[in-house]
Formats: sequence, structure tokens, C-alpha cells
Amino acid sequence: MTYSVEVKVMPLKELLDPQGKAVIGGLKNLGLQSVEDVRIGRNITLQIDAASPEEAKAIAEEASKKLLANPVMEYFEATVI
Amino acid sequence: MTYSVEVKVMPLKELLDPQGKAVIGGLKNLGLQSVEDVRIGRNITLQIDAASPEEAKAIAEEASKKLLANPVMEYFEATVI
Repeated sequence: MTYSVEVKVMPLKELLDPQGKAVIGGLKNLGLQSVEDVRIGRNITLQIDAASPEEAKAIAEEASKKLLANPVMEYFEATVI
Repeated sequence: MTYSVEVKVMPLKELLDPQGKAVIGGLKNLGLQSVEDVRIGRNITLQIDAASPEEAKAIAEEASKKLLANPVMEYFEATVI
């Protein structure tokens, strides 16, 4: 069966996110003053052929470790949807 | 109060996602044959100062329409978390 797994890859909380900081500036220029912080990461949806949701999640985590996320700068969360 | 709002920005389903296609190729080279499709978008978390979760969500949607998402190629979903 094919499962959809969503992987969120976000910059580690300890690190600055210059892309997010630039977006805060852009939003302030557009008049959206109430946005206090922005962090930008990736959202990756995988269609995985697996025997169970647990297996699909394990494959997505392997894919994240090997290719999708850079553990020096990012963390990831995989969720079967 | 400050609310966290998560905005997912993904390529429209009707469009090809060349970045996702490249990742499928990379995963196959790494031995992960069971991944059938990959789509890659952005995941943006906003910290928004608002009176209610509804107001925070409305501000996030305005930010998405004005700056974060390109409606020609992408759709977005905002969720208060």
C-alpha cells in the first residue's frame, strides 16, 4: 500500500535563520507589524510503498537522514498522514 | 498573546515539481526504491502577536497571500499550533 508521509525539515532552534529574518523585514514593510518571528524550513511529502504505516515512517526517516535534512543545521519530523 | 502559526506552502498538484523529481532519483541511488513520489515545498512558522487564534490565523493568511506564497505556482495552508 502507498502511504503519504510528511517530513518537516526546520533550522535548529539554536541557529539564526537569515531567510526568516529577511521575511520579517518584508512583512513589516507590508504593514504586518504583529509578526514577531519567522523561521523557514522545508516541507516534503513522500509517497511510500510499504507494508505498514510504521514501515513507511521508518523509510521516510532513513531518507531524511541520508538526503533530505542536514543534521548540522536542521532537524526533521516525519508524520504519516 | 503570541501564537505560533505554521504555514505550509506547496507546489500546486497540477504542476511538475522538478526538485521533487531530482530527490526521487537521489533516493533511488541510495537504495530507497520504495519512494514513489516526492513533492517539496516550504514550511514557515510565524510567531504572531494577536488577540485570538483566529486573528493570528487571519494575519498569517494575509502574510501568505502578500509575500510567502506565489499563487500562480503554489497553494498554502495556515494552522495555529
